[in-house]
Amino acid sequence: MRLLTRLLAPKAIAHAHCDLPCGVYDPAQARIEAESVKAIAEKYAANDDPAFRTRALIIKEQRSELVKHHLWVLWTDYFKAPHFEKYPELHQLFNDATKAAGAAGGKGSVDPKNGQELLDLIDKIATIFWETKKA
Amino acid sequence: MRLLTRLLAPKAIAHAHCDLPCGVYDPAQARIEAESVKAIAEKYAANDDPAFRTRALIIKEQRSELVKHHLWVLWTDYFKAPHFEKYPELHQLFNDATKAAGAAGGKGSVDPKNGQELLDLIDKIATIFWETKKA
Amino acid sequence: MRLLTRLLAPKAIAHAHCDLPCGVYDPAQARIEAESVKAIAEKYAANDDPAFRTRALIIKEQRSELVKHHLWVLWTDYFKAPHFEKYPELHQLFNDATKAAGAAGGKGSVDPKNGQELLDLIDKIATIFWETKKA
Amino acid sequence: MRLLTRLLAPKAIAHAHCDLPCGVYDPAQARIEAESVKAIAEKYAANDDPAFRTRALIIKEQRSELVKHHLWVLWTDYFKAPHFEKYPELHQLFNDATKAAGAAGGKGSVDPKNGQELLDLIDKIATIFWETKKA
Amino acid sequence: MRLLTRLLAPKAIAHAHCDLPCGVYDPAQARIEAESVKAIAEKYAANDDPAFRTRALIIKEQRSELVKHHLWVLWTDYFKAPHFEKYPELHQLFNDATKAAGAAGGKGSVDPKNGQELLDLIDKIATIFWETKKA
Amino acid sequence: MRLLTRLLAPKAIAHAHCDLPCGVYDPAQARIEAESVKAIAEKYAANDDPAFRTRALIIKEQRSELVKHHLWVLWTDYFKAPHFEKYPELHQLFNDATKAAGAAGGKGSVDPKNGQELLDLIDKIATIFWETKKA
Repeated sequence: MRLLTRLLAPKAIAHAHCDLPCGVYDPAQARIEAESVKAIAEKYAANDDPAFRTRALIIKEQRSELVKHHLWVLWTDYFKAPHFEKYPELHQLFNDATKAAGAAGGKGSVDPKNGQELLDLIDKIATIFWETKKA
Repeated sequence: MRLLTRLLAPKAIAHAHCDLPCGVYDPAQARIEAESVKAIAEKYAANDDPAFRTRALIIKEQRSELVKHHLWVLWTDYFKAPHFEKYPELHQLFNDATKAAGAAGGKGSVDPKNGQELLDLIDKIATIFWETKKA
Repeated sequence: MRLLTRLLAPKAIAHAHCDLPCGVYDPAQARIEAESVKAIAEKYAANDDPAFRTRALIIKEQRSELVKHHLWVLWTDYFKAPHFEKYPELHQLFNDATKAAGAAGGKGSVDPKNGQELLDLIDKIATIFWETKKA
Repeated sequence: MRLLTRLLAPKAIAHAHCDLPCGVYDPAQARIEAESVKAIAEKYAANDDPAFRTRALIIKEQRSELVKHHLWVLWTDYFKAPHFEKYPELHQLFNDATKAAGAAGGKGSVDPKNGQELLDLIDKIATIFWETKKA
Repeated sequence: MRLLTRLLAPKAIAHAHCDLPCGVYDPAQARIEAESVKAIAEKYAANDDPAFRTRALIIKEQRSELVKHHLWVLWTDYFKAPHFEKYPELHQLFNDATKAAGAAGGKGSVDPKNGQELLDLIDKIATIFWETKKA
Repeated sequence: MRLLTRLLAPKAIAHAHCDLPCGVYDPAQARIEAESVKAIAEKYAANDDPAFRTRALIIKEQRSELVKHHLWVLWTDYFKAPHFEKYPELHQLFNDATKAAGAAGGKGSVDPKNGQELLDLIDKIATIFWETKKA
């Protein structure tokens, strides 16, 4: 419901615009792909057909790559020097999250737990992101 | 604020999971790219440096392509026969929205108005999408 | 032979040009990729080496994605309101064909039959496409 | 008409299948993109709106890249040692055609003549291709 | 000469292999693309033909994106906790370098000086990279 | 060490710049990806976990495609008529190397030997490349 409201009230999302050429950032992009990564791991665990599992790994690899890409863009293009001063943990948080996207993407085990850890790290980044938007 | 709440409450988004392999859909993906398309048209209008304008058109073209891709995926992978029966306007709505993404992407004029029309069409799709999620 | 003639007689293909920026459409693009999807399913069935099968699924996934992309472009960029009035089944035909590209791409079984159904749907679209070109 | 017949008679195109994993080759893929390259150069010449011209160059660059890609795939994956023996000009023909795709793509002038030269080179390759299919 | 020697002596590059799935890292990948970014800025400055300049900006945008991608991969996949402890400036160095790739890619002015600053930052990263390889 | 020197001495690499728009060529790009192809084949042989092997094949396929792409660009964009006259074996060498990238990419067996053969072919091309740079 809240999300629907948000989708139908674009003028209220002034916080999503910034002053750079591409100008629009939202951690939801990384999060949606990460939800997909986790969901695929769950389906993989529940289905042992080899063709299904191969396809699951192919798509999971792509989704993980997209998670990393969206996070890298936030880290490089959105966050600036004053943010890194105020949130000294931010660099490491992004490094952990993109590493986790790799891990959740299939390095090591194919485990929904990895997907959840990835989601938790993205939520920490999102909390800081929206705090900087309010500032 | 509401968005932040949502980002921090992943378990509440059960509606975002469906029964297909890639399993996660959200019209927000198309919407975020469309906000970018509109924002770029505004910056284009406000800056007549030729190198800036060329870069704006390059990036706008990419963002428009992403809007179309996210909408096409929703139309093909998420929506099913019962949805098209219940919402007979849905096919045309998607065709209009993807055409508008092309128009907003630079065909015809580079005009923030086109970007807004695209956002309005995506919001109509999102309304239907979230209704089907509640059903 | 006929195809060779066609390839050597570019001036005769006036029907392949339209009035949009990218200006050239041909359902053959989707069809060639769909032939590849079907051929890969046949080879998959005939060879049970695990590495071969994994590679077959990787390439089939890419080819299916290309089928969908070429069909989406036709549906959004080539076909216009008068076409959809004259051929009311066109929206559903494209939705079925792109869904079939997903299915033939590995959702469900890896079966040449799915590839053939995809080819049949593309041929129905091609028939309409060339009728509109003659009009 | 002939093309329509071909599209509706898939079983007749046995020549389009070969013994490799991806298994389907057709010079039409390069040709369709090259027709697009030439058509864009014509539209560019006929329209001096700067935003239109920039978009034309962006899309032309992408189409040229696709021409090159489709030609490279034919040269590496389809043609084999016996073909190169029988057609000693084949290497140079492909090198000229891919260089012409770069030229038609905007290196040097933006000229429909370059697009036509590219089409002529692709037609020479297609002639050889279909001869090897008949053999 | 030295490079040639290196290219002809693959067994000597044991340091380029690590224990991850994709397993091979080399800052040269980012550097080569960054040289391209700088070279394009020089050619842009020397040629005021509008079509040439538009193409230069299109290609520069792509090359800059590749610089960023190769740097992000190094930062996420190659460097580990002990590296970040030993080189506390490493996070900021990567953030500066990827931001500079964006700047050199056309944000702000199209200036070979930006390209050189990007190369200098990549060289600082490369120095640390090769030190960790020797360790 | 030698490589480090090279990376830290950008001004010494005048040979890496040419007179074309994208202007920078280096066989190291193909070589680094080919090292990755070979390394992945070694890891594949050493680990029989099915998920690991599937991921290895996915990434190997991508790396092989990049090897081919970098070689094709060198062959089409860098080498010119006088080079092909002076080195009549050059066309065949590139055709063999790109075919080997396909083979090393998983066609036939997944064998580090294929990766080594690919590296050897790239080194032959690199020798000629650097000779033409000195000329």
